[in-house]
Amino acid sequence: MKIAVFGTSNVGDTIGSKLFKVGHPVMMGSRTSDNKNAKAFVSKHKGNATAGTFAEAAAFGEIIFNCTAGVGSLNALQMAGEENLNGKIIVDIANPLDFSNGMPPTLAICNTNSLGEEIQKAFPQTKVVKALNTMWCGLMVNPAMINGGDHSTFVSGNDAAAKEEVKTILKSFGWLDTNIIDLGNITKARGLEMYLPLWLSTFGATNNGAFNIKIVS
Amino acid sequence: MKIAVFGTSNVGDTIGSKLFKVGHPVMMGSRTSDNKNAKAFVSKHKGNATAGTFAEAAAFGEIIFNCTAGVGSLNALQMAGEENLNGKIIVDIANPLDFSNGMPPTLAICNTNSLGEEIQKAFPQTKVVKALNTMWCGLMVNPAMINGGDHSTFVSGNDAAAKEEVKTILKSFGWLDTNIIDLGNITKARGLEMYLPLWLSTFGATNNGAFNIKIVS
Repeated sequence: MKIAVFGTSNVGDTIGSKLFKVGHPVMMGSRTSDNKNAKAFVSKHKGNATAGTFAEAAAFGEIIFNCTAGVGSLNALQMAGEENLNGKIIVDIANPLDFSNGMPPTLAICNTNSLGEEIQKAFPQTKVVKALNTMWCGLMVNPAMINGGDHSTFVSGNDAAAKEEVKTILKSFGWLDTNIIDLGNITKARGLEMYLPLWLSTFGATNNGAFNIKIVS
Repeated sequence: MKIAVFGTSNVGDTIGSKLFKVGHPVMMGSRTSDNKNAKAFVSKHKGNATAGTFAEAAAFGEIIFNCTAGVGSLNALQMAGEENLNGKIIVDIANPLDFSNGMPPTLAICNTNSLGEEIQKAFPQTKVVKALNTMWCGLMVNPAMINGGDHSTFVSGNDAAAKEEVKTILKSFGWLDTNIIDLGNITKARGLEMYLPLWLSTFGATNNGAFNIKIVS
């Protein structure tokens, strides 16, 4: 399946490289068509990896992974153009972290709203699925790195079929079906994004980003 | 050690009963001296369990457990009187859940502030330790109920010695030392309280409140 990855930072590169590795043609999208990181991504994956503007990538992809910085995500998606996004799944793995007042970041949106919901409202003809935003990107694509791959990840979104497609991709990344928890509709993105401060505090206390939570009962 | 438990709901009763069981004299505090739940608590624990107003309980306790509803906690502590609280540890297990707009609740305070911080600011001569607010009260006092007792709990607060005292109490409840994560100062209460929406969503998705998170790495 052709996939667009929005964002050229470490997160976009990590997600894009994994999607490429498990067999998908990937186009990395960015603000300009000559982004240095995107070029490096393309040359690293000699083959079906390409790069282009957000609009070009969105037109190419059947699914869009939003790996941009959360505070810039809506702008990036607007640059992509509604006509290139409509009818498609947007996997939103971004967090609306606001670093403008220093560390630790606060959330630019929270409590009664979320970035996932904002994206869904701005692009009502898309199917937004919030996923993977609760951990370091290295774990997103390689859950087996810790605890034998036995820890939890979440999806939320309004479209059941879209969530199933995303779960299939997560399983191709190594996630166990039983560890993928469907929280419900896109309003559940609030809890997923509001978890970030606890993530950041735990990271600060342990000095180790390669951790995740496992729901135990 | 003499302990005051503020709040007469299921949470206060559960915490108070456990503290009594592990050997502490407990006074349950409430708005009035004739609270029905407090009377039931006293008669259930024939012995060193008593009840009184918030002020009487605070004067009695060497440590105060705040088990009131989060949106009423500051008021309850004000009723207790600064003179009865100063120099003491306040273990804040409350969450500032606002049910006024229906379910699910939102947070009355979050992101750049927390209930834990508000209590510390209002009572600067106390030592506030945020703890246990991330789970159902049945698990707070009986972690062995799930996963062989192997899951995570957190403390945050400005006073290192106070956190050690609270950790000792948590261990008497059955918490493993290695599972008690010290996140840092009281600003870390933000993440602990902002976790609640994810807790509520997970509860909603699984229909089981007897769950917790375990940090795995």
